Amino acid sequence: VRISDLSERSGVAPASIKYYVRERLLPPGEQASGNQTTYSDAHLARLRLIRAFLDVGGLSISSARAVFAAIDDDVPFAVAAAVASTALPNSASPPASDSHGAATLAALLERLGWHAAPTNPGFALAARVIDDYTALGRDDLLTVLPAYAESAMRVAEADLDATAASGSPERMTETVVIGTVLGDSLFAGLRRIAHEHVTYTRFPVPPEAFNGYHQHPEETR
Amino acid sequence: VRISDLSERSGVAPASIKYYVRERLLPPGEQASGNQTTYSDAHLARLRLIRAFLDVGGLSISSARAVFAAIDDDVPFAVAAAVASTALPNSASPPASDSHGAATLAALLERLGWHAAPTNPGFALAARVIDDYTALGRDDLLTVLPAYAESAMRVAEADLDATAASGSPERMTETVVIGTVLGDSLFAGLRRIAHEHVTYTRFPVPPEAFNGYHQHPEETR
Repeated sequence: VRISDLSERSGVAPASIKYYVRERLLPPGEQASGNQTTYSDAHLARLRLIRAFLDVGGLSISSARAVFAAIDDDVPFAVAAAVASTALPNSASPPASDSHGAATLAALLERLGWHAAPTNPGFALAARVIDDYTALGRDDLLTVLPAYAESAMRVAEADLDATAASGSPERMTETVVIGTVLGDSLFAGLRRIAHEHVTYTRFPVPPEAFNGYHQHPEETR
Repeated sequence: VRISDLSERSGVAPASIKYYVRERLLPPGEQASGNQTTYSDAHLARLRLIRAFLDVGGLSISSARAVFAAIDDDVPFAVAAAVASTALPNSASPPASDSHGAATLAALLERLGWHAAPTNPGFALAARVIDDYTALGRDDLLTVLPAYAESAMRVAEADLDATAASGSPERMTETVVIGTVLGDSLFAGLRRIAHEHVTYTRFPVPPEAFNGYHQHPEETR
Protein backbone atom coordinates (compact mmCIF):
# COMPACT_ATOMS: atom_id res chain seq x y z
CA VAL A 1 0.00 0.00 0.00
CA ARG A 2 1.03 3.65 -0.37
CA ILE A 3 2.05 5.89 2.51
CA SER A 4 -1.38 7.56 2.55
CA ASP A 5 -3.09 4.18 3.02
CA LEU A 6 -0.58 3.15 5.67
CA SER A 7 -1.25 6.42 7.46
CA GLU A 8 -5.01 5.90 7.32
CA ARG A 9 -4.89 2.31 8.51
CA SER A 10 -2.45 3.04 11.36
CA GLY A 11 -3.72 6.47 12.39
CA VAL A 12 -0.12 7.74 12.21
CA ALA A 13 0.54 10.91 10.15
CA PRO A 14 2.72 10.50 7.01
CA ALA A 15 5.29 12.92 8.45
CA SER A 16 5.61 10.72 11.56
CA ILE A 17 5.98 7.61 9.40
CA LYS A 18 8.83 9.27 7.51
CA TYR A 19 10.38 10.34 10.79
CA TYR A 20 10.34 6.76 12.12
CA VAL A 21 12.04 5.57 8.90
CA ARG A 22 14.74 8.25 9.27
CA GLU A 23 15.23 7.24 12.92
CA ARG A 24 15.53 3.57 11.86
CA LEU A 25 12.57 2.41 13.92
CA LEU A 26 10.63 1.44 10.78
CA PRO A 27 12.23 -0.27 7.74
CA PRO A 28 11.93 1.80 4.54
CA GLY A 29 9.14 0.93 2.10
CA GLU A 30 9.78 -0.83 -1.22
CA GLN A 31 10.59 1.30 -4.24
CA ALA A 32 7.89 0.38 -6.77
CA SER A 33 7.54 1.53 -10.38
CA GLY A 34 6.93 5.21 -11.12
CA ASN A 35 8.83 6.59 -8.12
CA GLN A 36 6.27 5.20 -5.67
CA THR A 37 7.06 3.69 -2.28
CA THR A 38 4.89 0.86 -1.04
CA TYR A 39 4.41 -0.55 2.44
CA SER A 40 3.32 -3.98 3.64
CA ASP A 41 1.38 -5.45 6.56
CA ALA A 42 4.71 -5.86 8.33
CA HIS A 43 5.06 -2.07 8.28
CA LEU A 44 1.60 -1.70 9.77
CA ALA A 45 2.39 -4.16 12.58
CA ARG A 46 5.70 -2.41 13.31
CA LEU A 47 3.99 0.98 13.40
CA ARG A 48 1.59 -0.33 16.06
CA LEU A 49 4.55 -1.52 18.11
CA ILE A 50 6.38 1.81 17.70
CA ARG A 51 3.36 3.75 18.95
CA ALA A 52 2.86 1.38 21.87
CA PHE A 53 6.51 1.70 22.92
CA LEU A 54 6.62 5.49 22.61
CA ASP A 55 3.14 6.41 23.88
CA VAL A 56 2.33 3.71 26.41
CA GLY A 57 5.80 2.44 27.32
CA GLY A 58 7.24 5.96 27.46
CA LEU A 59 10.45 4.92 25.68
CA SER A 60 12.76 7.43 24.06
CA ILE A 61 13.49 7.08 20.33
CA SER A 62 16.96 5.74 21.08
CA SER A 63 15.67 3.15 23.58
CA ALA A 64 13.06 2.04 21.07
CA ARG A 65 15.73 1.75 18.35
CA ALA A 66 17.89 -0.51 20.56
CA VAL A 67 14.90 -2.69 21.35
CA PHE A 68 13.90 -3.09 17.68
CA ALA A 69 17.49 -3.93 16.79
CA ALA A 70 17.31 -6.83 19.27
CA ILE A 71 14.04 -8.04 17.72
CA ASP A 72 15.36 -7.72 14.15
CA ASP A 73 18.88 -9.09 14.71
CA ASP A 74 17.64 -12.41 16.02
CA VAL A 75 19.94 -12.30 19.05
CA PRO A 76 19.92 -15.13 21.66
CA PHE A 77 16.95 -14.92 23.96
CA ALA A 78 18.84 -13.94 27.12
CA VAL A 79 20.51 -11.11 25.20
CA ALA A 80 17.14 -9.82 23.99
CA ALA A 81 15.99 -9.97 27.60
CA ALA A 82 19.03 -7.94 28.68
CA VAL A 83 18.33 -5.33 25.99
CA ALA A 84 14.66 -5.18 26.99
CA SER A 85 15.78 -4.58 30.57
CA THR A 86 17.50 -1.37 29.47
CA ALA A 87 14.21 -0.06 28.06
CA LEU A 88 13.00 2.01 31.00
CA PRO A 89 10.91 5.16 30.74
CA ASN A 90 13.09 6.67 33.47
CA SER A 91 16.67 5.63 33.82
CA ALA A 92 19.30 6.62 36.32
CA SER A 93 23.06 6.95 36.08
CA PRO A 94 25.04 4.20 37.82
CA PRO A 95 25.06 4.87 41.58
CA ALA A 96 28.09 6.51 43.19
CA SER A 97 30.47 4.13 44.96
CA ASP A 98 29.34 5.42 48.37
CA SER A 99 25.64 5.20 47.49
CA HIS A 100 23.61 4.11 50.49
CA GLY A 101 20.85 2.99 48.10
CA ALA A 102 23.20 0.70 46.18
CA ALA A 103 24.47 -0.86 49.43
CA THR A 104 20.92 -1.35 50.74
CA LEU A 105 19.84 -2.92 47.47
CA ALA A 106 22.90 -5.17 47.21
CA ALA A 107 22.24 -6.45 50.75
CA LEU A 108 18.61 -7.16 49.84
CA LEU A 109 19.59 -9.09 46.69
CA GLU A 110 22.20 -11.03 48.64
CA ARG A 111 19.60 -12.01 51.24
CA LEU A 112 17.11 -13.04 48.53
CA GLY A 113 19.77 -14.97 46.60
CA TRP A 114 19.03 -13.15 43.35
CA HIS A 115 21.59 -13.35 40.56
CA ALA A 116 21.84 -9.89 39.05
CA ALA A 117 24.68 -7.76 37.74
CA PRO A 118 25.23 -4.33 39.29
CA THR A 119 25.23 -3.16 35.65
CA ASN A 120 21.55 -4.12 35.33
CA PRO A 121 19.80 -0.79 34.57
CA GLY A 122 17.10 -1.72 37.08
CA PHE A 123 19.75 -1.76 39.80
CA ALA A 124 20.73 1.87 39.09
CA LEU A 125 17.09 2.97 39.03
CA ALA A 126 16.04 1.18 42.23
CA ALA A 127 19.21 2.37 44.05
CA ARG A 128 18.45 5.93 42.95
CA VAL A 129 14.93 5.77 44.38
CA ILE A 130 16.28 4.46 47.69
CA ASP A 131 18.85 7.28 47.75
CA ASP A 132 16.04 9.75 47.03
CA TYR A 133 13.96 8.44 49.94
CA THR A 134 16.98 8.99 52.17
CA ALA A 135 17.69 12.48 50.78
CA LEU A 136 14.04 13.38 51.37
CA GLY A 137 14.34 12.23 54.99
CA ARG A 138 11.99 9.34 54.31
CA ASP A 139 14.01 6.24 55.15
CA ASP A 140 10.82 4.97 56.79
CA LEU A 141 9.48 4.27 53.28
CA LEU A 142 12.07 1.52 52.90
CA THR A 143 9.76 -0.76 54.91
CA VAL A 144 8.06 -1.46 51.55
CA LEU A 145 11.16 -3.09 50.06
CA PRO A 146 10.47 -6.76 50.94
CA ALA A 147 6.89 -6.59 49.61
CA TYR A 148 8.08 -4.85 46.45
CA ALA A 149 10.85 -7.40 45.86
CA GLU A 150 8.58 -10.41 46.37
CA SER A 151 5.95 -8.88 44.09
CA ALA A 152 8.54 -8.03 41.43
CA MET A 153 9.68 -11.67 41.47
CA ARG A 154 6.09 -12.88 41.19
CA VAL A 155 5.55 -10.60 38.18
CA ALA A 156 8.86 -11.62 36.60
CA GLU A 157 7.95 -15.32 36.91
CA ALA A 158 4.61 -14.62 35.21
CA ASP A 159 6.41 -12.67 32.47
CA LEU A 160 8.81 -15.51 31.80
CA ASP A 161 5.98 -18.09 31.89
CA ALA A 162 4.16 -16.10 29.19
CA THR A 163 7.40 -15.80 27.25
CA ALA A 164 8.21 -19.50 27.42
CA ALA A 165 4.64 -20.32 26.29
CA SER A 166 4.93 -18.08 23.25
CA GLY A 167 6.68 -20.65 21.07
CA SER A 168 9.47 -20.06 18.56
CA PRO A 169 12.67 -18.21 19.55
CA GLU A 170 11.73 -15.17 17.40
CA ARG A 171 8.35 -15.03 19.07
CA MET A 172 10.00 -15.32 22.52
CA THR A 173 12.22 -12.34 21.74
CA GLU A 174 9.22 -10.28 20.67
CA THR A 175 7.33 -11.38 23.78
CA VAL A 176 10.04 -10.46 26.26
CA VAL A 177 10.46 -7.06 24.69
CA ILE A 178 6.74 -6.22 24.53
CA GLY A 179 6.05 -7.68 27.97
CA THR A 180 8.95 -5.87 29.59
CA VAL A 181 8.17 -2.45 28.14
CA LEU A 182 4.37 -2.44 28.30
CA GLY A 183 4.32 -4.48 31.52
CA ASP A 184 5.66 -1.49 33.48
CA SER A 185 2.62 0.54 32.44
CA LEU A 186 0.20 -2.34 32.99
CA PHE A 187 1.53 -2.79 36.52
CA ALA A 188 1.54 0.95 37.26
CA GLY A 189 -2.11 1.14 36.15
CA LEU A 190 -3.14 -1.83 38.29
CA ARG A 191 -1.23 -0.38 41.25
CA ARG A 192 -3.23 2.87 40.97
CA ILE A 193 -6.45 0.87 40.97
CA ALA A 194 -5.29 -1.17 43.98
CA HIS A 195 -4.37 2.07 45.78
CA GLU A 196 -7.91 3.32 45.29
CA HIS A 197 -9.38 0.09 46.62
CA VAL A 198 -7.14 0.02 49.71
CA THR A 199 -7.53 3.75 50.40
CA TYR A 200 -11.29 3.47 50.04
CA THR A 201 -11.36 0.49 52.40
CA ARG A 202 -9.10 1.96 55.06
CA PHE A 203 -9.78 5.69 54.90
CA PRO A 204 -13.36 6.26 53.75
CA VAL A 205 -14.31 9.87 53.00
CA PRO A 206 -17.62 11.39 51.86
CA PRO A 207 -18.01 11.54 48.07
CA GLU A 208 -18.13 15.38 48.14
CA ALA A 209 -14.47 15.45 49.17
CA PHE A 210 -13.59 14.30 45.66
CA ASN A 211 -15.24 17.26 43.91
CA GLY A 212 -12.95 18.44 41.18
CA TYR A 213 -10.66 15.46 41.51
CA HIS A 214 -11.96 12.16 40.27
CA GLN A 215 -15.18 10.41 40.90
CA HIS A 216 -15.73 8.56 44.12
CA PRO A 217 -15.94 4.78 43.69
CA GLU A 218 -19.40 4.41 45.25
CA GLU A 219 -20.85 6.96 42.85
CA THR A 220 -20.11 4.76 39.91
CA ARG A 221 -21.43 1.44 41.11
CA VAL B 1 20.53 31.80 51.54
CA ARG B 2 20.91 33.39 48.10
CA ILE B 3 20.07 31.68 44.86
CA SER B 4 23.75 30.90 44.18
CA ASP B 5 24.02 29.04 47.51
CA LEU B 6 20.74 27.24 46.92
CA SER B 7 22.03 26.21 43.50
CA GLU B 8 25.28 24.93 44.96
CA ARG B 9 23.64 22.97 47.78
CA SER B 10 20.99 21.43 45.53
CA GLY B 11 23.05 20.90 42.39
CA VAL B 12 20.28 22.62 40.41
CA ALA B 13 21.26 25.48 38.07
CA PRO B 14 19.93 28.98 38.97
CA ALA B 15 18.07 29.15 35.64
CA SER B 16 16.25 25.90 36.49
CA ILE B 17 15.39 27.19 39.97
CA LYS B 18 13.85 30.31 38.38
CA TYR B 19 12.00 28.13 35.90
CA TYR B 20 10.48 26.03 38.71
CA VAL B 21 9.32 29.21 40.47
CA ARG B 22 7.70 30.49 37.24
CA GLU B 23 6.01 27.08 36.79
CA ARG B 24 4.73 27.25 40.39
CA LEU B 25 6.53 24.08 41.49
CA LEU B 26 8.72 26.03 43.91
CA PRO B 27 7.45 28.92 46.10
CA PRO B 28 9.22 32.21 45.39
CA GLY B 29 12.05 33.27 47.71
CA GLU B 30 11.68 36.08 50.26
CA GLN B 31 12.42 39.62 49.16
CA ALA B 32 15.19 40.75 51.50
CA SER B 33 16.82 44.18 51.73
CA GLY B 34 18.79 45.54 48.79
CA ASN B 35 16.79 43.82 46.05
CA GLN B 36 18.00 40.38 47.14
CA THR B 37 15.95 37.19 47.19
CA THR B 38 16.65 34.63 49.89
CA TYR B 39 15.75 30.97 50.11
CA SER B 40 15.27 28.64 53.07
CA ASP B 41 15.81 24.98 53.91
CA ALA B 42 12.19 24.41 52.85
CA HIS B 43 13.19 25.50 49.35
CA LEU B 44 16.09 23.06 49.37
CA ALA B 45 13.82 20.19 50.44
CA ARG B 46 11.24 21.10 47.80
CA LEU B 47 13.94 21.26 45.09
CA ARG B 48 14.99 17.70 45.99
CA LEU B 49 11.41 16.56 45.62
CA ILE B 50 10.99 18.39 42.29
CA ARG B 51 14.08 16.70 40.85
CA ALA B 52 12.99 13.29 42.13
CA PHE B 53 9.53 13.68 40.57
CA LEU B 54 10.81 14.94 37.23
CA ASP B 55 13.97 12.83 36.82
CA VAL B 56 13.14 9.59 38.61
CA GLY B 57 9.34 9.64 38.58
CA GLY B 58 9.20 10.87 34.98
CA LEU B 59 6.37 13.33 35.73
CA SER B 60 5.54 16.21 33.43
CA ILE B 61 5.71 19.75 34.84
CA SER B 62 1.91 19.93 34.94
CA SER B 63 1.57 16.58 36.75
CA ALA B 64 4.18 17.69 39.28
CA ARG B 65 2.33 20.98 39.79
CA ALA B 66 -0.94 19.16 40.55
CA VAL B 67 0.81 16.88 43.01
CA PHE B 68 2.49 19.75 44.87
CA ALA B 69 -0.83 21.60 45.04
CA ALA B 70 -2.27 18.58 46.85
CA ILE B 71 0.65 18.55 49.30
CA ASP B 72 0.45 22.31 49.90
CA ASP B 73 -3.34 22.66 50.06
CA ASP B 74 -3.69 20.24 52.94
CA VAL B 75 -6.49 18.30 51.25
CA PRO B 76 -8.08 15.24 52.93
CA PHE B 77 -5.86 12.20 52.71
CA ALA B 78 -8.04 10.22 50.28
CA VAL B 79 -8.11 13.21 47.94
CA ALA B 80 -4.32 13.48 48.01
CA ALA B 81 -4.21 9.78 47.22
CA ALA B 82 -6.54 10.35 44.24
CA VAL B 83 -4.34 13.18 42.97
CA ALA B 84 -1.22 11.07 43.41
CA SER B 85 -2.91 8.36 41.37
CA THR B 86 -3.10 10.74 38.40
CA ALA B 87 0.67 11.22 38.52
CA LEU B 88 1.76 8.66 35.94
CA PRO B 89 4.79 8.97 33.68
CA ASN B 90 2.65 7.63 30.83
CA SER B 91 -1.04 8.27 30.78
CA ALA B 92 -3.71 7.14 28.37
CA SER B 93 -6.95 8.71 27.21
CA PRO B 94 -10.11 7.13 28.64
CA PRO B 95 -10.83 3.91 26.75
CA ALA B 96 -13.41 3.89 23.94
CA SER B 97 -16.83 2.51 24.92
CA ASP B 98 -16.21 -0.63 22.85
CA SER B 99 -12.70 -1.17 24.28
CA HIS B 100 -11.97 -4.85 24.72
CA GLY B 101 -9.28 -3.91 27.24
CA ALA B 102 -11.70 -1.93 29.40
CA ALA B 103 -14.19 -4.83 29.39
CA THR B 104 -11.46 -7.35 30.27
CA LEU B 105 -10.21 -5.15 33.08
CA ALA B 106 -13.70 -4.43 34.45
CA ALA B 107 -14.41 -8.17 34.55
CA LEU B 108 -11.14 -8.77 36.41
CA LEU B 109 -11.90 -6.07 39.01
CA GLU B 110 -15.42 -7.42 39.46
CA ARG B 111 -14.03 -10.91 40.08
CA LEU B 112 -11.47 -9.55 42.55
CA GLY B 113 -14.07 -7.38 44.30
CA TRP B 114 -11.97 -4.24 43.94
CA HIS B 115 -13.69 -0.90 44.43
CA ALA B 116 -12.36 1.40 41.75
CA ALA B 117 -13.85 4.08 39.55
CA PRO B 118 -13.53 3.72 35.76
CA THR B 119 -12.25 7.31 35.97
CA ASN B 120 -9.17 6.13 37.88
CA PRO B 121 -6.25 7.05 35.57
CA GLY B 122 -4.75 3.64 36.21
CA PHE B 123 -7.84 2.06 34.67
CA ALA B 124 -7.31 3.93 31.37
CA LEU B 125 -3.62 3.02 31.31
CA ALA B 126 -4.07 -0.68 32.09
CA ALA B 127 -6.99 -0.94 29.60
CA ARG B 128 -4.80 0.68 26.94
CA VAL B 129 -2.02 -1.87 27.47
CA ILE B 130 -4.52 -4.74 27.19
CA ASP B 131 -5.89 -3.19 23.97
CA ASP B 132 -2.33 -2.90 22.68
CA TYR B 133 -1.62 -6.56 23.38
CA THR B 134 -4.72 -7.42 21.38
CA ALA B 135 -3.84 -5.05 18.51
CA LEU B 136 -0.37 -6.61 18.39
CA GLY B 137 -1.93 -10.07 18.12
CA ARG B 138 -0.61 -10.97 21.56
CA ASP B 139 -3.70 -11.82 23.58
CA ASP B 140 -1.65 -14.72 24.97
CA LEU B 141 0.20 -12.15 27.13
CA LEU B 142 -3.00 -11.62 29.10
CA THR B 143 -2.18 -14.79 31.06
CA VAL B 144 -0.05 -12.52 33.26
CA LEU B 145 -3.05 -10.51 34.48
CA PRO B 146 -3.90 -12.44 37.69
CA ALA B 147 -0.26 -12.42 38.89
CA TYR B 148 0.04 -8.71 38.08
CA ALA B 149 -3.19 -7.86 39.90
CA GLU B 150 -2.29 -9.85 43.03
CA SER B 151 1.19 -8.30 43.07
CA ALA B 152 -0.23 -4.80 42.58
CA MET B 153 -2.52 -5.35 45.57
CA ARG B 154 0.39 -6.61 47.67
CA VAL B 155 2.41 -3.51 46.75
CA ALA B 156 -0.55 -1.20 47.40
CA GLU B 157 -1.06 -2.72 50.87
CA ALA B 158 2.63 -2.15 51.65
CA ASP B 159 2.34 1.43 50.37
CA LEU B 160 -0.64 2.15 52.58
CA ASP B 161 1.02 0.48 55.58
CA ALA B 162 4.02 2.79 55.16
CA THR B 163 1.67 5.74 54.75
CA ALA B 164 -0.36 4.94 57.84
CA ALA B 165 2.85 4.55 59.86
CA SER B 166 4.12 7.95 58.79
CA GLY B 167 2.20 9.91 61.41
CA SER B 168 0.47 13.25 61.04
CA PRO B 169 -2.05 13.90 58.23
CA GLU B 170 0.36 16.28 56.45
CA ARG B 171 3.07 13.67 56.61
CA MET B 172 0.65 11.02 55.29
CA THR B 173 -0.16 13.22 52.30
CA GLU B 174 3.52 13.68 51.53
CA THR B 175 4.10 9.95 51.94
CA VAL B 176 1.36 8.85 49.61
CA VAL B 177 2.53 11.26 46.94
CA ILE B 178 6.22 10.34 47.18
CA GLY B 179 5.49 6.64 47.48
CA THR B 180 3.08 6.60 44.56
CA VAL B 181 5.32 8.50 42.16
CA LEU B 182 8.73 7.05 43.03
CA GLY B 183 7.27 3.62 43.80
CA ASP B 184 6.61 3.04 40.08
CA SER B 185 10.31 3.45 39.35
CA LEU B 186 11.36 1.41 42.37
CA PHE B 187 9.15 -1.45 41.26
CA ALA B 188 10.22 -1.18 37.60
CA GLY B 189 13.86 -1.38 38.70
CA LEU B 190 13.26 -4.41 40.93
CA ARG B 191 11.28 -6.08 38.14
CA ARG B 192 14.28 -5.69 35.76
CA ILE B 193 16.52 -7.29 38.37
CA ALA B 194 14.03 -10.14 38.91
CA HIS B 195 13.85 -10.66 35.12
CA GLU B 196 17.60 -11.11 35.02
CA HIS B 197 17.49 -13.63 37.87
CA VAL B 198 14.67 -15.66 36.33
CA THR B 199 16.13 -15.51 32.80
CA TYR B 200 19.53 -16.54 34.10
CA THR B 201 17.99 -19.45 36.02
CA ARG B 202 15.76 -20.71 33.22
CA PHE B 203 17.69 -19.86 30.06
CA PRO B 204 21.42 -19.91 30.82
CA VAL B 205 23.71 -18.67 28.03
CA PRO B 206 27.51 -18.39 27.82
CA PRO B 207 28.88 -15.06 29.08
CA GLU B 208 30.25 -14.21 25.59
CA ALA B 209 26.68 -13.87 24.32
CA PHE B 210 26.41 -10.67 26.33
CA ASN B 211 29.34 -8.93 24.64
CA GLY B 212 28.37 -5.35 23.95
CA TYR B 213 25.19 -5.60 26.00
CA HIS B 214 25.55 -5.77 29.73
CA GLN B 215 27.74 -7.90 31.87
CA HIS B 216 26.79 -11.46 32.57
CA PRO B 217 25.82 -12.06 36.21
CA GLU B 218 28.48 -14.71 36.86
CA GLU B 219 31.21 -12.37 35.68
CA THR B 220 30.54 -10.01 38.52
CA ARG B 221 30.30 -12.38 41.44
